[in-house]
Amino acid sequence: MKIIIDVMGGDKGPAEVVKGAVEGCRDLKTDVILVGDQTVIRSVAAENKLDLTGIRIVHASDVITMEDDPMSIRKKENASMRVALKLLSDGEGDALVSCGNTGALQTGATLYVKRIRGVHRAAIATLLPLTCPTLLLDSGANISVTEEHMTQFAIMGSVYMEKLYKLQSPRVGLLNNGTEERKGTPLQQETHQWLKECDVNFIGNVEGKDIPFGKCDVIVTDGFTGNIALKSLEGMASFVVGKFKAIFKSGILGLASAALIKKKLDVLGKQMDTRSHGGAPLLGISRAVIKAHGNSDALAIKNAMRQAVNYVNTNVISEISKRCAAESMKRERME
Amino acid sequence: MKIIIDVMGGDKGPAEVVKGAVEGCRDLKTDVILVGDQTVIRSVAAENKLDLTGIRIVHASDVITMEDDPMSIRKKENASMRVALKLLSDGEGDALVSCGNTGALQTGATLYVKRIRGVHRAAIATLLPLTCPTLLLDSGANISVTEEHMTQFAIMGSVYMEKLYKLQSPRVGLLNNGTEERKGTPLQQETHQWLKECDVNFIGNVEGKDIPFGKCDVIVTDGFTGNIALKSLEGMASFVVGKFKAIFKSGILGLASAALIKKKLDVLGKQMDTRSHGGAPLLGISRAVIKAHGNSDALAIKNAMRQAVNYVNTNVISEISKRCAAESMKRERME
Repeated sequence: MKIIIDVMGGDKGPAEVVKGAVEGCRDLKTDVILVGDQTVIRSVAAENKLDLTGIRIVHASDVITMEDDPMSIRKKENASMRVALKLLSDGEGDALVSCGNTGALQTGATLYVKRIRGVHRAAIATLLPLTCPTLLLDSGANISVTEEHMTQFAIMGSVYMEKLYKLQSPRVGLLNNGTEERKGTPLQQETHQWLKECDVNFIGNVEGKDIPFGKCDVIVTDGFTGNIALKSLEGMASFVVGKFKAIFKSGILGLASAALIKKKLDVLGKQMDTRSHGGAPLLGISRAVIKAHGNSDALAIKNAMRQAVNYVNTNVISEISKRCAAESMKRERME
Repeated sequence: MKIIIDVMGGDKGPAEVVKGAVEGCRDLKTDVILVGDQTVIRSVAAENKLDLTGIRIVHASDVITMEDDPMSIRKKENASMRVALKLLSDGEGDALVSCGNTGALQTGATLYVKRIRGVHRAAIATLLPLTCPTLLLDSGANISVTEEHMTQFAIMGSVYMEKLYKLQSPRVGLLNNGTEERKGTPLQQETHQWLKECDVNFIGNVEGKDIPFGKCDVIVTDGFTGNIALKSLEGMASFVVGKFKAIFKSGILGLASAALIKKKLDVLGKQMDTRSHGGAPLLGISRAVIKAHGNSDALAIKNAMRQAVNYVNTNVISEISKRCAAESMKRERME
């Protein structure tokens, strides 16, 4: 197993990425290819006393920043992300991990690595570590989609949760503004009908307020709504946790109060830590592409690598291909 | 000032509503009309030792339940909500407070009380009591809207925050999947351009993660996206608070920890209590209609009545009418 790592473009800089890659390579017994500015890679390795023996470095002189347009992946030929995607597409590695610009990664993966045959849109699938692990897709790649795309998201999300989380028959919900069948825009109404006929365990519409409480394992939505829901959830979690933190930090009573329940607070913090679940897979791409969080540290990178290994080992991609083809044949017969 | 109260159809039953109405009537020095089953109203008043002297009761034999279709307002002629809307439209009262079915209230208000002349869609405006009071609209009334509707939402929300929260020039944000101008679906892209030219203090796009942190005072969105954002925020707040509560309730250490910071927890609880802000106004309706939360207790009803009084006294409706007309003339000149 060989994992390609895009070293540049994350919020925390290359040092954390290189550190995570070196640790991951040792702990997971995989090979890695580091892609980025080789002078920078060697210097952060030296500064952090990281041993690069046996690790291949592929030089890339340019970087796609978080502010760049998704289409910058076409223009910046020497950007680390572009070079990494090319290596993956050429079969030089089995999976790619990047904590760079999401839009550029999704555009580049579609352009250079290509989608699975028969899959119309690749989706970014984000795991929410709440009451139970819940996969939300699409969480931002596709702003405008059809009921057919959303049905494929349901299939891809189901396969992912079956394979990586060993769920027998993942419960699929459609994100909507009410549980009744007729709710939503024409897109949700039509998708609801498609999902009822689709070979997934569709449990109906789910509302925003249900998301944290484990009502389903896979939440299907378009990329616009998915982005709004995901960021609203993140924002509110951070707001409320911040309020409690402020209380715990204010005065001697606050500090004493926190000290009494420190162990339980640590457990809660770990449960809600998105870093421990790796990154978001780009489901529908013909090879494993994992988008790690923009502000990934070494631990997050290592966990994204572990996820990439599982993704490849459990044959997620061939199963998606098979299931989407079967669904499409079924619908053709129906029409 | 006379406030019409729809007594039936809330989650907590008529007793809490009648209790809130009687207290509100006394504290706010307003008249009220209670609309609902008169036997039920008299019996809950007797049970709770509430003095109905001087309070007019208008009998309505039917109820619109939370499960009813919005169009049930047309069919159930004797439903308390329908009778209450008719009283408002006939000028028997100055404002209406209901904690019943939101869809039916919005449909009924549009059908029987009518919109302000020149306003194309009435919107449900929900106040989020977070870093600063933030008004989100539309939070669920209109699933499909145009850039013109959204621009009117911005104007109506601005007027409301100016009048009821005494803000000089409320900051208006457009809920979107990124801060860049070109983000979103064609609807958001087009609305962004309209808002730039509109006579409100438009600060650009805001993301879901910004909502709790007071980045703006008015958040404009379509009813579908607004519902998803609002319920995701509510769900996550309830999830995280629940986690902390569970820690505080588990064992002697948890209880001791909570006791040390009890005062601050109470303050936080009050800050985040939506009941203290009354209900959600239906902006764009030609008379004051306040939708109190479905599970309103007496305190929430009283606060919704206070809000209704302020709404009427500050002339929100005539100001919305004036500002929407001015905006529409400005756009005509531009085109």
